[in-house]
Amino acid sequence: MSEPPYQRVLDAVYDDVLALIGQGVVARSIPALAVVDPHRFGIALATPAGEVFGAGEYNVPFSIQSISKVFSFGLVLAADDQIWKRVGHEPSTDPYNSLIQLERDRGIPRNPFLNAGALVTTDRLLGLSLPGSDAVDELLRFVRAESGNPHVDLDHAVAASELASCHRNAALAHLIADFGNLDHPVHLVLEQYVGQCALAMSCADVALAARFLATGGLRSDGSRLLPAADVKRLNATMLVCGMYDRAGEAAYRFGLPAKSGVGGGIVAVVPGRCVLCVWSPGLDASGNSVAGVAALEAFSTRTGWSVF
Amino acid sequence: MSEPPYQRVLDAVYDDVLALIGQGVVARSIPALAVVDPHRFGIALATPAGEVFGAGEYNVPFSIQSISKVFSFGLVLAADDQIWKRVGHEPSTDPYNSLIQLERDRGIPRNPFLNAGALVTTDRLLGLSLPGSDAVDELLRFVRAESGNPHVDLDHAVAASELASCHRNAALAHLIADFGNLDHPVHLVLEQYVGQCALAMSCADVALAARFLATGGLRSDGSRLLPAADVKRLNATMLVCGMYDRAGEAAYRFGLPAKSGVGGGIVAVVPGRCVLCVWSPGLDASGNSVAGVAALEAFSTRTGWSVF
Amino acid sequence: MSEPPYQRVLDAVYDDVLALIGQGVVARSIPALAVVDPHRFGIALATPAGEVFGAGEYNVPFSIQSISKVFSFGLVLAADDQIWKRVGHEPSTDPYNSLIQLERDRGIPRNPFLNAGALVTTDRLLGLSLPGSDAVDELLRFVRAESGNPHVDLDHAVAASELASCHRNAALAHLIADFGNLDHPVHLVLEQYVGQCALAMSCADVALAARFLATGGLRSDGSRLLPAADVKRLNATMLVCGMYDRAGEAAYRFGLPAKSGVGGGIVAVVPGRCVLCVWSPGLDASGNSVAGVAALEAFSTRTGWSVF
Amino acid sequence: MSEPPYQRVLDAVYDDVLALIGQGVVARSIPALAVVDPHRFGIALATPAGEVFGAGEYNVPFSIQSISKVFSFGLVLAADDQIWKRVGHEPSTDPYNSLIQLERDRGIPRNPFLNAGALVTTDRLLGLSLPGSDAVDELLRFVRAESGNPHVDLDHAVAASELASCHRNAALAHLIADFGNLDHPVHLVLEQYVGQCALAMSCADVALAARFLATGGLRSDGSRLLPAADVKRLNATMLVCGMYDRAGEAAYRFGLPAKSGVGGGIVAVVPGRCVLCVWSPGLDASGNSVAGVAALEAFSTRTGWSVF
Repeated sequence: MSEPPYQRVLDAVYDDVLALIGQGVVARSIPALAVVDPHRFGIALATPAGEVFGAGEYNVPFSIQSISKVFSFGLVLAADDQIWKRVGHEPSTDPYNSLIQLERDRGIPRNPFLNAGALVTTDRLLGLSLPGSDAVDELLRFVRAESGNPHVDLDHAVAASELASCHRNAALAHLIADFGNLDHPVHLVLEQYVGQCALAMSCADVALAARFLATGGLRSDGSRLLPAADVKRLNATMLVCGMYDRAGEAAYRFGLPAKSGVGGGIVAVVPGRCVLCVWSPGLDASGNSVAGVAALEAFSTRTGWSVF
Repeated sequence: MSEPPYQRVLDAVYDDVLALIGQGVVARSIPALAVVDPHRFGIALATPAGEVFGAGEYNVPFSIQSISKVFSFGLVLAADDQIWKRVGHEPSTDPYNSLIQLERDRGIPRNPFLNAGALVTTDRLLGLSLPGSDAVDELLRFVRAESGNPHVDLDHAVAASELASCHRNAALAHLIADFGNLDHPVHLVLEQYVGQCALAMSCADVALAARFLATGGLRSDGSRLLPAADVKRLNATMLVCGMYDRAGEAAYRFGLPAKSGVGGGIVAVVPGRCVLCVWSPGLDASGNSVAGVAALEAFSTRTGWSVF
Repeated sequence: MSEPPYQRVLDAVYDDVLALIGQGVVARSIPALAVVDPHRFGIALATPAGEVFGAGEYNVPFSIQSISKVFSFGLVLAADDQIWKRVGHEPSTDPYNSLIQLERDRGIPRNPFLNAGALVTTDRLLGLSLPGSDAVDELLRFVRAESGNPHVDLDHAVAASELASCHRNAALAHLIADFGNLDHPVHLVLEQYVGQCALAMSCADVALAARFLATGGLRSDGSRLLPAADVKRLNATMLVCGMYDRAGEAAYRFGLPAKSGVGGGIVAVVPGRCVLCVWSPGLDASGNSVAGVAALEAFSTRTGWSVF
Repeated sequence: MSEPPYQRVLDAVYDDVLALIGQGVVARSIPALAVVDPHRFGIALATPAGEVFGAGEYNVPFSIQSISKVFSFGLVLAADDQIWKRVGHEPSTDPYNSLIQLERDRGIPRNPFLNAGALVTTDRLLGLSLPGSDAVDELLRFVRAESGNPHVDLDHAVAASELASCHRNAALAHLIADFGNLDHPVHLVLEQYVGQCALAMSCADVALAARFLATGGLRSDGSRLLPAADVKRLNATMLVCGMYDRAGEAAYRFGLPAKSGVGGGIVAVVPGRCVLCVWSPGLDASGNSVAGVAALEAFSTRTGWSVF
């Protein structure tokens, strides 16, 4: 099957959603994010071979926040598929930072893409890190290599701001620890979790770094990160769980595995073909970018591509 | 892409799951189903062109139960896409017959594949039925035409048994009515709902009748039932909601849109390629056929097919 | 301890709450009650000896609704204390007509003063009724004898109105039946339940009829309805469960066992001393009479009486 | 009304419950408590005048744990009745350390006797403490004065053990802080909360120290701690909320305002007459002392006393 003219599609998608850019509200839970201008927009597409197309501010770094959960979980799964015993793969009907289901499930997070699940992932990544390294280091090494951008780094101002106001994540971490599902001290897991979320990457960086989800598990250097079957499972889990409590809405509207962050970014996978990353900071009530979801829907409509 | 040798794949799948046939428990909620032998198994595959392959008892009729929700919702959606205002497309973390989420959501069922959602679907189908016809008639007309089997009928013993013990569904219907989301009297909706669930069809019948989900909305006579975009949305909703509270598990294990019934049947869609129906009455704790889920997983592994 | 001058206290209480009469909203769930003028108010006090004091419209019949739950449960408990196996005595944090806790507790209502609990009570009272009699008959016989008013009857317009719109109670009854906690057909239990709720009684009638709660279980003719220990338990259960999801608020404000009805009536017990009944149709968000609660609080403040 | 022969009643109560002593399980959540011998039992009764009667090991100090919530809340209420804006007075149907209702209620604990409520109380008591003093100091000063026992102190081993394993309370505190309902740092509130819970007092000490609940608010020196109306409200709140999620059960069985601790102690109030404290470490599933509840029930039966 021949490729569509990606650049023209992205330009058209940008036009499609112009009126929505700036709608929604910027995340308020993290002070450093609350001051971001909601009128930003970028979209990038990376092919398996590493070609990048883009529209809008697709080379401007933004706070990837929960998109980091995809990278850290991928790294953990590559090293230890027993992680599925500590975190599930079912959707949640509660908000992403809710403690209700976590208490009911006795400290086993429903999936890796909720905050609770990502705290467990970070805890495991800490345990897998090389001597002298930590979870943030491991993650940085990976995304720099995959994006080909050695300047990817964490935004220390965002990290500090988030760490100073992370009572909700601390509550989640202590509840997980109370049920015996953390190996490391809560303060260390929180510091590392917040560090990952504070990674600043552009749409192009994210799309490139997530290519292993579209290539059946191959890294940019051709080596294998994950078996193809595990990538399918990871994409499946993203489709069912990646868009907070709006998994059904997202599947209905654009039908691609995707992961959203409260910084306004969304990464989406067209298995076998390409990875998309869109960014616009205005969020809907569930925490998904308004213009971002619309852009993915427009892309799906214009290409006819979804997994269904 | 060339077709795999379907018959050999199904034979191999049958071998793969032999040890699981008979595991799990037969549905006890409906007396007439509680006496079914758990050691039954059949699997059928229908191509868009209507070719059928099968293994095991794939021509033996069984009680399709909740699989009927796919057909009735397809018929309603074809006539009135405003149905999405009365029923959502998000997954549920509660059991399929739970009232908890329904009360929280004020009578709007989370999706069409929960009992609550199917009651609303049936209510709408009643309103759309031709004079002198009812919801069961409409459904029978459709599945007979699509399966090419004019003998498909409802099992009156199952229907009577279910109607005599349907307190839980009656509770759901009254709660929906209390919130103003039913147009017809509760007793009529219940009778029609139970009638649909009591349809007896073979794996071959079901796979043939569900082909519109694999063909982008075309009926067996080439006419269009649904726009392609609506079929994608229906498949997306099935993937996220079709396997009771195990949507994530199913997506993880075989990654295909599917709908399960407590009679032990599951219909699954490979968009653009084929429809599968598997039947084995032993159920797991969530109400999904143990051997059925395993067979779909084996099929996905052997063909490499999933939507991801 | 000498009695306070009851008449003067009631007159003063009436003055205390004048500004609140008419506040709140009239119950909308039952059409026949939705047209009641919210500016009604009456309060009566009955001594164990049967002396009655009153202020406002204390001789005007109103729809007692859930106050009937006290009488019917008292009658059942007198005949069968095994009823506590079918209904609990813990408070609920959900609204009085919620199905959520009932599903979690597998059909055992938390207490006899929720709708669910009263449906079980009615079911049991049906089973205890004399040949040729039913639950409503039993209840009428009791309240007529205790109040000394042979004209107490049910308001058939209210009963018919409620029966025609009782989807929520039907949902509760079917859910209870689904868990095997009803002996009689749902439609019969509903009809009898609605009949009891539709009893029209004045404040004076109610206060007189509830004297067994203040006398340690004695009826007006001096015979024993209940052992003193059972009356204590019944009063305890009323205090913890009788004011819908505002048991704590009521205990905090006036500290007496009490039962509220959506008709705007509240019966309250001062053990060993007297029974009060207040009526004013304007309800707060939990379904308790605004002026009624205020009147009981004023009574408690003026007399210094509460159980604490 | 003349006093019953208290000593004989307590001796008889001890006999009544002999067979139950040792039943139930010792609290495991706090390592230092998990090693306590379940076969301990003591009961004390203090009159308003300060006379003490007792049976069993009523002079042996035990870990009062949640009984401290009564003292600390009394102290806060005496200084600031606006505390009711930060904590409610409704019962909870969840366990005492659950986060579910707290998240639903957006950080306002349902009542002061849940762990969440006591954390808010402690936070307020910290704010009210004199310079150079803290919440534990204030509490120690109070209970020493009221019990007349200057040796009352906290058990530092219990406090250290609890602080080292208080993930659940840390989760609660962070969740409260996330909703803006804490004035002081989480670690400080936790340290002070754990300190209070670790107070070691005998049944006699506790009964004497809680006399203000039976005397309408008077301290042992005749000065007033609280207005009588506030004491009634506090007793009301204890009755509705003091026995974890078994408020109804306790009201039903002994009908007295009471507060339970996981150390196996229970304090109970007979307004106007006396205060009881019973201790036996074996707990039921809700965390209430098995022999302790039985002893209070036996006391109520033998004296005929309850608030109902």
